[in-house]
Amino acid sequence: MTFWKKFFDNTSMFDRFGNINVVSSLKEVILVKHLENRGKKVDIYLTTDKNINLYELEQLCDSVGWVRRPLKKIKAAIDHSFITVCLFYRTGEKKKLVGFARATSDTVFNATIWDVVVHPDFQRKGLGKILIDQVVLQLRGADITTITLFADPQVVSFYRNLGFVTDPDGVKGMFWYPR
Amino acid sequence: MTFWKKFFDNTSMFDRFGNINVVSSLKEVILVKHLENRGKKVDIYLTTDKNINLYELEQLCDSVGWVRRPLKKIKAAIDHSFITVCLFYRTGEKKKLVGFARATSDTVFNATIWDVVVHPDFQRKGLGKILIDQVVLQLRGADITTITLFADPQVVSFYRNLGFVTDPDGVKGMFWYPR
Repeated sequence: MTFWKKFFDNTSMFDRFGNINVVSSLKEVILVKHLENRGKKVDIYLTTDKNINLYELEQLCDSVGWVRRPLKKIKAAIDHSFITVCLFYRTGEKKKLVGFARATSDTVFNATIWDVVVHPDFQRKGLGKILIDQVVLQLRGADITTITLFADPQVVSFYRNLGFVTDPDGVKGMFWYPR
Repeated sequence: MTFWKKFFDNTSMFDRFGNINVVSSLKEVILVKHLENRGKKVDIYLTTDKNINLYELEQLCDSVGWVRRPLKKIKAAIDHSFITVCLFYRTGEKKKLVGFARATSDTVFNATIWDVVVHPDFQRKGLGKILIDQVVLQLRGADITTITLFADPQVVSFYRNLGFVTDPDGVKGMFWYPR
């Protein structure tokens, strides 16, 4: 049993990364952070359940100015992601989505993290770190060794602080462009 | 119907990229190149069929000095890849695998190309270009817009010649490393 596997056999709460806890089942929801938002106390929860309200996700992406994408395609992308992580808080009977990240993977060797987003009202409160730490923990728990992402310039240092390295041994991220 | 989609509705041979032809069905095998190997004429065929002999693939990876990986995991990685492309030639009743590439994807937005390999006896003959062009064509045919890869320093210019760009708008490829 590997170091990481061991964590996942333990269903208890877990705080190796400070506030973060490992979600050990797909449907589990865990409390990851107490915050204040506009003077009100807010408990932030995390889930890897893929049953995501697509309209809520669209609103979250709108809040950071992303170009809108067809919901049908977003649904397909979620279905074909190895993992999704959602952060939300409860307001009355409703949930409010405030963070999201997902990763594609071949399930055994390589993974790539995409679509990392935190609502502007909740940025600079450690939620991005919670999202990424959870994605990494889940991928490591599946023994996936190559965990990659493509970072915009303004978030390179954010990811560096979370253990990501740019261009290791000169390996370059590349994008295909139509000629 | 998009520009690319149109290609895939056409099952005839196709040479927009010189020697390359589009594989329009998963089981189709097409002739992509006439070569000479050690004085003998060799016809190179391409297929996107995922029914791959894992021992042959292992031998191919051995030939370029890659670290061996468990066949069971390689099988899982192939099963969970969006596309695989194989190049081979026929020798009597047998096939000899000489090239391979695969891509993971969320099936709609993003893809990442992994494990691009050409047997040393067949390098510098245009087979790498045939592999990558085919992967790109298939991904574009599925309307996937973000096609990425991570290139070792010695193959960055190879991929650049095929339309890939490093660090567009400062976007950096990053890898997670255990601390």
